[in-house]
Amino acid sequence: MSSEATVQDITAGTANVVLGEDGKPLSKAQLKKREKEQEKERRKAEVAARLATEKAAREAAEPDHSANRYGKLPMNQSQAEYNRESKRTKIVTLGEANVGQTILLSARVQTSRPTGAKKCFVTLRQRTVTVQGVVTVDEETVSKQMLKFVNGISVESLVLVEATVVKALQKVTSCTVQDVELKITKLHVISEAARLPFTLEDASRPITELEESSAEAPVGKVTMKTRLDNRVIDLRTITNQAVFRMQHGVSRLFREYLESKDFTEIHTPKLIGAASEGGANVFKLNYFNTSKQAFLGFQILSIAILTMISANAFLAQSPQLYKQMVICSDFERVYEIAPVFRAENSQTHRHMTEFMGLDLEMSFEEHYHEVLDVLDGLFAHIFEGLKTRYAAEIEVIKRQFPFDDFVYKPTRLEFPQAVAMLRKAGIEIGDHDDLSTESERVLGRLVKEQYGTDFFMLDKFPLAVRPFYTMPDPNKPGYSNSYDFFIRGEEILSGAQRIHDSAFLEERAKVHQVDPATIQPYLDAFKYGAPPHAGGGIGLERVVMLYLNLGNIRRTSLFPRDPTRLTP
Amino acid sequence: MSSEATVQDITAGTANVVLGEDGKPLSKAQLKKREKEQEKERRKAEVAARLATEKAAREAAEPDHSANRYGKLPMNQSQAEYNRESKRTKIVTLGEANVGQTILLSARVQTSRPTGAKKCFVTLRQRTVTVQGVVTVDEETVSKQMLKFVNGISVESLVLVEATVVKALQKVTSCTVQDVELKITKLHVISEAARLPFTLEDASRPITELEESSAEAPVGKVTMKTRLDNRVIDLRTITNQAVFRMQHGVSRLFREYLESKDFTEIHTPKLIGAASEGGANVFKLNYFNTSKQAFLGFQILSIAILTMISANAFLAQSPQLYKQMVICSDFERVYEIAPVFRAENSQTHRHMTEFMGLDLEMSFEEHYHEVLDVLDGLFAHIFEGLKTRYAAEIEVIKRQFPFDDFVYKPTRLEFPQAVAMLRKAGIEIGDHDDLSTESERVLGRLVKEQYGTDFFMLDKFPLAVRPFYTMPDPNKPGYSNSYDFFIRGEEILSGAQRIHDSAFLEERAKVHQVDPATIQPYLDAFKYGAPPHAGGGIGLERVVMLYLNLGNIRRTSLFPRDPTRLTP
Repeated sequence: MSSEATVQDITAGTANVVLGEDGKPLSKAQLKKREKEQEKERRKAEVAARLATEKAAREAAEPDHSANRYGKLPMNQSQAEYNRESKRTKIVTLGEANVGQTILLSARVQTSRPTGAKKCFVTLRQRTVTVQGVVTVDEETVSKQMLKFVNGISVESLVLVEATVVKALQKVTSCTVQDVELKITKLHVISEAARLPFTLEDASRPITELEESSAEAPVGKVTMKTRLDNRVIDLRTITNQAVFRMQHGVSRLFREYLESKDFTEIHTPKLIGAASEGGANVFKLNYFNTSKQAFLGFQILSIAILTMISANAFLAQSPQLYKQMVICSDFERVYEIAPVFRAENSQTHRHMTEFMGLDLEMSFEEHYHEVLDVLDGLFAHIFEGLKTRYAAEIEVIKRQFPFDDFVYKPTRLEFPQAVAMLRKAGIEIGDHDDLSTESERVLGRLVKEQYGTDFFMLDKFPLAVRPFYTMPDPNKPGYSNSYDFFIRGEEILSGAQRIHDSAFLEERAKVHQVDPATIQPYLDAFKYGAPPHAGGGIGLERVVMLYLNLGNIRRTSLFPRDPTRLTP
Repeated sequence: MSSEATVQDITAGTANVVLGEDGKPLSKAQLKKREKEQEKERRKAEVAARLATEKAAREAAEPDHSANRYGKLPMNQSQAEYNRESKRTKIVTLGEANVGQTILLSARVQTSRPTGAKKCFVTLRQRTVTVQGVVTVDEETVSKQMLKFVNGISVESLVLVEATVVKALQKVTSCTVQDVELKITKLHVISEAARLPFTLEDASRPITELEESSAEAPVGKVTMKTRLDNRVIDLRTITNQAVFRMQHGVSRLFREYLESKDFTEIHTPKLIGAASEGGANVFKLNYFNTSKQAFLGFQILSIAILTMISANAFLAQSPQLYKQMVICSDFERVYEIAPVFRAENSQTHRHMTEFMGLDLEMSFEEHYHEVLDVLDGLFAHIFEGLKTRYAAEIEVIKRQFPFDDFVYKPTRLEFPQAVAMLRKAGIEIGDHDDLSTESERVLGRLVKEQYGTDFFMLDKFPLAVRPFYTMPDPNKPGYSNSYDFFIRGEEILSGAQRIHDSAFLEERAKVHQVDPATIQPYLDAFKYGAPPHAGGGIGLERVVMLYLNLGNIRRTSLFPRDPTRLTP
């Protein structure tokens, strides 16, 4: 590099002392010799450049039998006449039945690999599927110029391809479509991709291929931070495409089941007037500087005084209070799918400051186990639906994140049983202690061993560790009519029978140091006759993470939010 | 009242001067006389009280052949053994087929009306249906004591009723179940209602029965403010029960159609790092005082410095930017149902600070009219579904809010056509002006007259009145590939083809005075190849309000939020 610096100094005509490669100043003779050599180099480069230009001109002048078969399309502004009959093929539909057909499709160039001077392989991708395309120079359709153009397309560009479907000579193991490939006859760029911060191949590499050594726990060769900083690219991996189809699957199955049981979907406010469920983890915001004009009449004079009143609002930490209020309004059975906000300053694998709550609440006739039965049926429906309708997605995800198939047997335990199991396994726990994260994990393992299920319900939690609105167990002092559900030893649902008696509710609020004034509209709701009711709240991202054993909740949120991440 | 004050003063034994009814101080003789009279009154009251107590005791001693047939149940804590076989009847299922059956049901006492000394009628309600119950004193089941108990139940209390279904002698026009009534044999109170701030009858009164004169536009005799202040009670009217079932219907039909077209449901963040879509109407909040520990190594000494960094977050004004980013991630077709936050200080019949957005975005192949076709099909599905599946709810709502049946014919107009129609009707409007609220209303009327539809799509809005990310029309300068949809002359959807070219997008942002720095992650999303795409956002509450012609958006939100209302 030092010699390059020297050359620059000379060409700039400076009088600085010039050093040779040995670090010593050059003599005049040495300098002269050097200048001559450089002059020679320059001439050589000039000749090469002229020849290249001439070659390009010759090539350009050469008849290009692929004219109109390739190139960059102008930005699509819907300038073409709208044609309802125009058909594009989806890669997912391609198979041997299509051999011989000429098709048109738009797809991303996932990779492009020249082979020799006359051929290029391109992997074309749509969502979770890929197919191999081949561009081969021939006399009729593909010119050398066209091949050159295809070779130059940056990966992840979107292209419009016309091709003939041909049978693959051997299984294309690098693509999801393996029996056929596409003999490309036209290829235009719809939208060009800039250089990527990482490749999709790296981002899709099975975790088993990688060491799990570094502090930042690498995922593929691409760290979580890099992925999340460039989430729009990361989300294109076929794994992520499958993860988010499954996320949709969970809410879809949730709704499907509850709607079949006559539940009504509700939307409760996220902007609330008081930090109702404990002020610690709540986000606060300014809610209008209401300008009020107060007119004071004083004899003949009237003075208008402008007072600025600043009000606060809070973001709902759950739809809990509102879904119960709607039960008091006789909605009988309700569900809500909505964001939940927690100003919790913890950076763990399973906490986010914003996540999706799948909530439900239901009035019952005699016993809160009527609600547990509905929840039982709900999870059976979700697990069955994921297994049967999302088998393809599960396979795709497993390739990158291998995991043990999820096993489900309806299992309902009571808290004292869990305590006994844990003690037997050597864990110290008091009768009325809450479960620690570690105890939950151990319990999950024990239940798997003893009951053969990755999912179970745990009923009858100690009263003291539950929120103020939880109904105490009338028969066993110190316990309550409340429950948590677990997948692979982590909590995914929390719920209970709620107190529906206004006076008793207020009493329990006070015991929990909740100021009744902050929840007055909620307490009032129970004064006009309230039905016994129970319900629960499910963390959507947790269900997906645990079902697929993905290890980090950020993998199941499109744009995860935690105390240090608000962007993209 | 002054005499009452006087009595109190006397009984309290104060030495204050006592005034007579004429306002003058009483003489000693007058005072003495007065005291005697009061003493007499007191004795009389004592006697009356004793007699009443004796009567009650006598009655209590009387044999009550209804023992165990009535009373107040203890608070339900699920103390009973859980019985899966226990069946309760739903009022909605009752008809002549049930005559002779003995049923058990829980319901609200909507009204209770004693008739003579031996009979009482109660109207029992579940959600949108009511049935008449009759309690008649007889020798075997209902005692005088039981009748008295029933008469004393406060309206809106929840009761558990055992009854025999009998054929009604004449149609019970005051109830929705008109052919049969319930001969009540047992009645227990599950949960007692306090005195209501207004009656459900008043809250359900047809608006045609009322004057629409006062400033606060009375609804029933009950004002909007009273309703919203006591929303939990107001939501119990059969009208409101029907309104919110229909609100669910709209999102259900929305999802149903889009899922059949392979759309994926997404959840984009509501907490965002920058006020991305114009800072004016955005809510701002504190997002953690991030404490960062910076370790400075200086020779042997290492100093830990704790810095407190306060960050801001904003509430998303729409999922616009994020749903587009997900399109850049190849999701192809996405929808989201989520709250949208607007810090807009306007108190109108159609604005709220929080409302539900039904959003969708879709990449297309050639022309954005591919997306308009999907939207066309979507609304056809919604309107057809509401008409056929929610006919009963529509009938219920019409009784309180009579409205013209919604008429739908697929209709697509272009902006210049609308301008021509408005000008013909005498409205002044420039070629590239936006539509005012008033113009929209007139246009709605004109379209209804000329095309016979309450719904239409208006395509090709002037470019200048649309957001920066709107794709200009390549053929007609000054116009854009954007559209609004209208119901009864009010906008319910806004959408467009979006710019998918990063450089052009940045250019247009600058034209609109949007600082590219505030939307960098969004701009970056388009750098790695972006498909042409279009979409739209629908206001859920507006669709319900306008379809049912309810006149105020607060009627279609469970707990509406506006600049002056954050509670309940």
